[in-house]
Order: sequence, then C-alpha cells, then structure tokens
Amino acid sequence: MAVDLNADLGESYGVWRLGDDEAMLDVVTSANVACGFHAGDPAHLAATCRAAAERGVRIGAQVGYRDLPGFGRRFIDVPPDELTAEIIYQIGALQALARVHGTTVYYVKPHGALYNTIVNHREQARAVAEAVRAVDPELPVLGLPGSAFFAEAERLGLRTVSEAFADRAYRPDGQLVSRRERNAVLHDPRQIADRVVQMVTTGRVVAVDGSTIPLRVESICVHGDTAGAIDIAAAVRKRLLDEGVELRPFT
Amino acid sequence: MAVDLNADLGESYGVWRLGDDEAMLDVVTSANVACGFHAGDPAHLAATCRAAAERGVRIGAQVGYRDLPGFGRRFIDVPPDELTAEIIYQIGALQALARVHGTTVYYVKPHGALYNTIVNHREQARAVAEAVRAVDPELPVLGLPGSAFFAEAERLGLRTVSEAFADRAYRPDGQLVSRRERNAVLHDPRQIADRVVQMVTTGRVVAVDGSTIPLRVESICVHGDTAGAIDIAAAVRKRLLDEGVELRPFT
Amino acid sequence: MAVDLNADLGESYGVWRLGDDEAMLDVVTSANVACGFHAGDPAHLAATCRAAAERGVRIGAQVGYRDLPGFGRRFIDVPPDELTAEIIYQIGALQALARVHGTTVYYVKPHGALYNTIVNHREQARAVAEAVRAVDPELPVLGLPGSAFFAEAERLGLRTVSEAFADRAYRPDGQLVSRRERNAVLHDPRQIADRVVQMVTTGRVVAVDGSTIPLRVESICVHGDTAGAIDIAAAVRKRLLDEGVELRPFT
Amino acid sequence: MAVDLNADLGESYGVWRLGDDEAMLDVVTSANVACGFHAGDPAHLAATCRAAAERGVRIGAQVGYRDLPGFGRRFIDVPPDELTAEIIYQIGALQALARVHGTTVYYVKPHGALYNTIVNHREQARAVAEAVRAVDPELPVLGLPGSAFFAEAERLGLRTVSEAFADRAYRPDGQLVSRRERNAVLHDPRQIADRVVQMVTTGRVVAVDGSTIPLRVESICVHGDTAGAIDIAAAVRKRLLDEGVELRPFT
Repeated sequence: MAVDLNADLGESYGVWRLGDDEAMLDVVTSANVACGFHAGDPAHLAATCRAAAERGVRIGAQVGYRDLPGFGRRFIDVPPDELTAEIIYQIGALQALARVHGTTVYYVKPHGALYNTIVNHREQARAVAEAVRAVDPELPVLGLPGSAFFAEAERLGLRTVSEAFADRAYRPDGQLVSRRERNAVLHDPRQIADRVVQMVTTGRVVAVDGSTIPLRVESICVHGDTAGAIDIAAAVRKRLLDEGVELRPFT
Repeated sequence: MAVDLNADLGESYGVWRLGDDEAMLDVVTSANVACGFHAGDPAHLAATCRAAAERGVRIGAQVGYRDLPGFGRRFIDVPPDELTAEIIYQIGALQALARVHGTTVYYVKPHGALYNTIVNHREQARAVAEAVRAVDPELPVLGLPGSAFFAEAERLGLRTVSEAFADRAYRPDGQLVSRRERNAVLHDPRQIADRVVQMVTTGRVVAVDGSTIPLRVESICVHGDTAGAIDIAAAVRKRLLDEGVELRPFT
Repeated sequence: MAVDLNADLGESYGVWRLGDDEAMLDVVTSANVACGFHAGDPAHLAATCRAAAERGVRIGAQVGYRDLPGFGRRFIDVPPDELTAEIIYQIGALQALARVHGTTVYYVKPHGALYNTIVNHREQARAVAEAVRAVDPELPVLGLPGSAFFAEAERLGLRTVSEAFADRAYRPDGQLVSRRERNAVLHDPRQIADRVVQMVTTGRVVAVDGSTIPLRVESICVHGDTAGAIDIAAAVRKRLLDEGVELRPFT
Repeated sequence: MAVDLNADLGESYGVWRLGDDEAMLDVVTSANVACGFHAGDPAHLAATCRAAAERGVRIGAQVGYRDLPGFGRRFIDVPPDELTAEIIYQIGALQALARVHGTTVYYVKPHGALYNTIVNHREQARAVAEAVRAVDPELPVLGLPGSAFFAEAERLGLRTVSEAFADRAYRPDGQLVSRRERNAVLHDPRQIADRVVQMVTTGRVVAVDGSTIPLRVESICVHGDTAGAIDIAAAVRKRLLDEGVELRPFT
C-alpha cells in the first residue's frame, strides 16, 4: 500500500517568506511549486526546485490566477483563451527553472481560487485542461475527484490524480465543507493523522454528519503555510509509515 | 550574400497595443518576442508565436527587466542571481508558448535597458549569459559586438550573433550614438535603406564624423514601434532584395 | 437646459497610449481620470490632471479593480473591506495629483467590471459607497440610476448623479443591452447625436424593442478609446450646443 | 531633553506578513508607513493607520520605488518627472487612508534604495523634494543629514529632520558603514541602547575607527523587520526613558 504526500511550496515573494519549504521538503513526496502568478518570484522558485531535486521530491506546477495582492484566492473572471495562455506561460516558466536545477515538472495542480472555481466552472476548467494538454499530454493533473476540471481533463486524455485533504472536513456528498463554516478545518495533529490513515487504508472517511463515505485517494494534501503546519505534516507522515504505508510520488 | 532581419514584437499588453506585429512579420526573418516582464501578456505572446510560426519567422526570447511601467527602459540594479532566475523564467515561459504553437525559441536577445546595461555591466552580463547557457547551451544570443555580454557569452561557449541597427548613428569607435544626442536616430527610409545595403555588402558604415568604420553584421535590427516603422522596415527589406541579398534567419 | 458630458481619460500606461486625451478634453465637461489600478501611471495621471485643469474640465476619480492586464474589465471577487481600502487609496492618490496641478477630485465613477458588478453586487456596491463617504461625504458618485451602487450611496447620504450612454442600446427596462449581443453599441455619429439630444431634451430614449422609455440623465457618457471616438464625441457636443443645450459640469 | 523614535511599518502585502506592527507601535513615536509601491496593500495600510491613530503615533509616508519583488531595495533609474509623480501619488494615497482613520500624514521618509540613492543622486533627490513641496510645503522630510536630499529639500524651504540609526555603524565622516561590510550592523540590544543614549544625550557617536564624531539627531530609527527587532526597539525605548529622555514625535 502506497500513497503520495503533496504540499504547496515556493510561495515566498521577494523579502516576504511563507512557510518553511526546507522542512516540508523532508516530509512530502510531491511539491506543488508556485509559478509566479499568485506567489513565487523566480529566485525563490529556482531555490525550491533545487532543494526538491536534491531530495528527490517531485515537482508540480502550482498554477494560479495572476493575483499577488490576493494570493490567488479571489476568483477572477478571466476569459478562457487568456487563461489558457496564462497557464501555459506559468508551466513553461517553471519547467525551465526545474530543468536548470536537474529535475522537471511532473504534474500540474491549480491553486486557490482557480482550484475552487474549476470544480464547477466549465469554461475555466476546460481552459486549464487545454493548457496542460497543449504543453504535454503526458502531464497528469492533481485535483478533486468529481470536479469539472477532472471531467475536462479526462475528456482530453489527461491522467487525473485524486487528492484528499488531511485537515479538511468532508460533507456527506464528498465535497469539502466550506472554510466559511465552523469545523471546516481540523487542527489536532493526532486526529488528522488518524483520519489520513483511515482514508488511505480503507478508502473511506467520516463526514461531518458522522456518516462514512468513500473517497478516492492517490495523494494526500498537507498544508505548509499555517501555524503548526510542519508538525501536522510530520505527524501524518510518521503515522502512515508506522502503519506500513509506503510514501511515494504518484508519478 | 545573406543577412537576417530582426525586430521586437509581442509588446502589446492587455488592452494596450504597440506596433503592428502582423505587418512586421511579413518583413523580418527573426522576431524578438517579449516575455511578459517589460511587455507582452501571455495571450498576446501566444498570438505572436502563432503568427510567426505560420510565416516561418524565427522566434527569439526578448528578455528584459521586470518593469511594465517603464517598458524595461530603466536600469534596475537586480542582484545577478535574481537576474539569472528571472531570465530563465522568461525564456521558459516563451518556450512553452512557442512549442504549443508549433515553433520554438531559437535565440535570446536582451531588451531595452538590460541590453544597454550589459554592454558594460559585467555582473549582469554574466547573469544573462549564465541563464541562457543553463536553459540550453545551443541557444545563440543576439546583441552588440564588443559588449561585455558577448565576452561573457563566448566565455561560456555560447554562439554570439552580431546585429547592426538600421536607423541608428554610429560613433567612430563602433558604439551607438546616445539617444540623448541629436542625430542619434535616422528617419529617412531611403537613407536608412542605403546605409543597410552598405553595411551588409561592404561590412562598413559611415560614422557620425564622416569616417568609414568596419561593422560585423549578421542581423539587421529594424524598429517596429515608431511612426513609419513598417515603411522603413519594408524599404530596408526591398532594397536588400533588390541588391541580391538573401534574407534568411541566422539560425 | 444643461447637461454634463463625461469620458474616461488618463488610461495610458507607460509607453502604451490609449485614446486622445487632449482632444477629448476639448469636448467633455467632466473627465473620469483613471487612478492607476486598471490603467494610468502617475506621470500620465499628472499630465491629465494638468490638461484638465487648464481647460476647466472637472476631474472625477475613475476607480477600478487592481487589474492592469485585464484593464479592470474582469470581475474580481475582492472582499468588501479590501475593496473599500483600495478605493480610498485610489481616490487619495488622484486627489494629491489633482491638487498639485491646481484642481481637485470633484466626483467618483467606478470603472469597467467594477461599474457593472455593483449594479447588482450589494457587498461590493456598499464597499465602494463607504469608501467615497469615508474620503469625503460631499463627493458625488456618477453611475447608473437604479443600481445597487446608487441605493447604497443614497443610504449613506451621498449625492448620486445619473448618466446615460451616448452609444449604447437600452432594454425596455432601462438597463443596457449586454455587449455580448448584436446592436449593443451604436456607431453612427449622426444617429448617436440625435439620440443624445432626445435623451437630454425629452428625458426619454427609444429602447431596442422600439418602445420609448424614461431615462434620468444628468450626464452623458461618451467613449474615448474606440475608433472614431473623438468624432462621435464632437458630434454629440455640437448637436447639443446647436439645440441650445448648455454643456456644464454637474458639480 | 527629548527625541523621536521612528520605525518602518505597514510593510505586509496580501497574505505575506512582515514585522510585528502592533508591537512596534507600542514602542515608537513616529511610524514610517509604506505606501504600496515597495510594500503595503491598501487594507494593511488602513489597518496600520488605524492602529497608529489609536496610540497617538505620528504617521509618515514611507515612499519608495515601485518594486514589490525587490522590496524597493534596488536602484531604479526612474526619470525625475516620473519619480515626482510617483511620490505625489504615494503620499496622496496614504493621506486618504490616514484621514479616514482619524489621523494624517505628518512627514515623508524615503525608503530603501531610494533613501540611499538620494544621498548623492541630485536629480532624484530634487524629484522627491519637489513632490513633497508640491503636496504640502509644511510637510517635513525625515532623512540623513548632509544628503543631497536634504540640500534640495532645504533649497525648496522644506523642514528637514535628521535621523540616526540605532543599530548601524558609522564611518569617521559621519556616513553609514555599507551593509556589505562586516560590522555594519549592531545586534546586541544593550550595546545598541547604550549607543543611542550617547547619541541623544551628547550629540556624538563612536565611529568604527574608534574616533568620536558629532551627529545631529532629532529622531532615532529602529528596525522592525529583523529577528529580535522588537526587543532591540523596546530596549532602546526603556534606556532612553530611564535616562530621563522624553520620547515625543518631532512633529
């Protein structure tokens, strides 16, 4: 039994630091590296690629809206053809930095508001999927099973890789509880680790209403930018290894 | 006898247009396409790559300072390692867009203040040359013979391609007359065309003091963003063809 | 009988020009000057303020989303408190430039997607209205009668000034025909001028279905950034003067 | 005997935090608040203005180059007239936010590379001084005695306020030791506090060569963005109060 562990990295910008990339790279097997549109200046991206390459952590292009002041967390009504060009631009920029540092971009994962938008927004979902296919039809996309993005990606022949969130509560229909609601986010490392083990070993998770629902899990997303993030991620990693689950990239 | 004709393209941004890219693509053999830092949003860059590919015009990455408000025309004291990462980022972004549209990035040409700075600024010259080599040691660089940039590029084993400016006056030492001086820029299409023919067929040009000086010319740079730019470029093209000079990319 | 004539100005950015501000300033009585978020670098804004002051044209702050690549034409889901701060910031910046050049900001008009959004989006409408009141409760707002923005502005005690569009088709309910539909925009200067005279002298306009509807008109908006824009604006101005309508700022 | 204590604040941007503004506001008497060009989004600036107003801390406009990725720490060769417009824009934006929150901009202090550049760069020094005078000839400027900036400001009739740096080493000629040299920055809170007391009570400081030099000190600059910054600033404040020095704004 094996699973991938992914987290967002490379999200510093200039003088501003976010998260502890070095520490997270010792925990995860896949690093969603920002591409400069919602975060990540080229020098930080280069350093993150280098550090990931040194540890054998796989790099994915974490593409987002062009929105530094909002960190890519605000929906922007970008026309689909412009969005496609922006995604291609971002992937290409990270590919060059990754190659220079001895690795490559193994997959693509949308960030923030773009991630959330293309769960349902058909045109933007298609725009992102078309960008990935245009760059390389062999690039898998990491995201939410059941999303419009996955439907569009599969229609184009892309491999879709399903992720589950270590610290997020699920609704009975398998969707995430909105961050605007209480109890949307779990904080206790032990509880989170227990939950992830359940997800991975049984393919099921307990939803907010107490029911147990099925969950497709090829990768577990841990967060890197919150208080205690590293502790939670490390706890998840340790518990999985203790349970005999192998941690390895999905690529 | 053959020569390349290059011009800056893809320098529109959002709603703002600059130059007539379609018309220029019918004149030149090499297009220095902006990379989004001094100009060029991804959708315009994509359209420019597509249009160049359709005409068989070679694409080069026109890399610059990150400076939209100044159009890359203001020196920025970027630390060399950050500059290297920024150049890699820009080349990679354009490579992806070019490939998606059936072509590739054939060379690199610095833009504006970066171009002028690395005539003499050793650290930034090296930073740019190292970026190009890191991305692909087979990528030629287009620029000014005798520059620090060419010295650094050659030290790293890169091919350097010398360009001459169709509409700029030269000093007796082979450098360009500063734009701050009178008569720095020529405006008469006929005079400019005569001059380019002389450069290409004799390897010599008349400097501002009336002396004739040698000039290494593998490509002629014509401008696309000034009044009458297309007329001048077309006049240069026609005269060269009339004189039996073949126009072909240097790559 | 009198009416105001307004247009968007100061929308150049760096090397990129948009519209012919000098010519438009000879036509309009109120200039909606960009504030640097969707367009307008400080040097262009300063020049526009100076030119408007010289002609006695009133300046309004044309506030928008922070979106240079999209020219403020794309909805951005900005949280209301952030939007309020952004609007205050923009008005203040333009106030300083206006005062330095011998004039002041007389009113506020939202731009592009923000204008369209706050016709219905209550939270953003309130955020903009609160920003204006916070800066100066005496500042009028220019916009669409019947909009959520006007409702919020009036609730806060702001003066609202209703504008009609010279070149846009109206639905029977008084709303604008969407730009995505055919016939949304009128192009014939004579027809546009006739229509404006009808609006101003009768307070009514012929809607797309042929019915005549009432329209509250304190200012007429003419566009400055399209082909023939100046000709249309000048034709409107001339016709109004010919009909004995006085052109004067609403402030 | 009295002195002012100033620090840079409001330098967060979007999701990225820098320094502990709340803690620093309990220490200083003057807050150099960023204006959005090198740091500081409008919502953070608003919050900083509100927090400063609540504590009676004076606000100054910390104006800088437009350079988020470089945090305003890189020289940019901005033409003087553009720089003047940019400075006016920044001051005005902060003025509006300050007024909305019950305070005002009491002074102007250039930031980072702009601060360092206009120690010697006459044209940019004049551009900044002219911007301040244009906004309000009563606004004092905070900076380095002996600088070109002070010379230009005084020529224009502006009040100049001299600051000394709590944690920086001085050369025998009264200039700062470059950050590129060892021992440019002091780190021990006790030593720094001793030194500041000496500066304030004697008007002299010990330079790096052991000589004692005169120093004009109307304000002491403490840093807010380094490790231990708050501890150092608090130590300086406590020592000054213990020595009977009153802390009060220079305005």
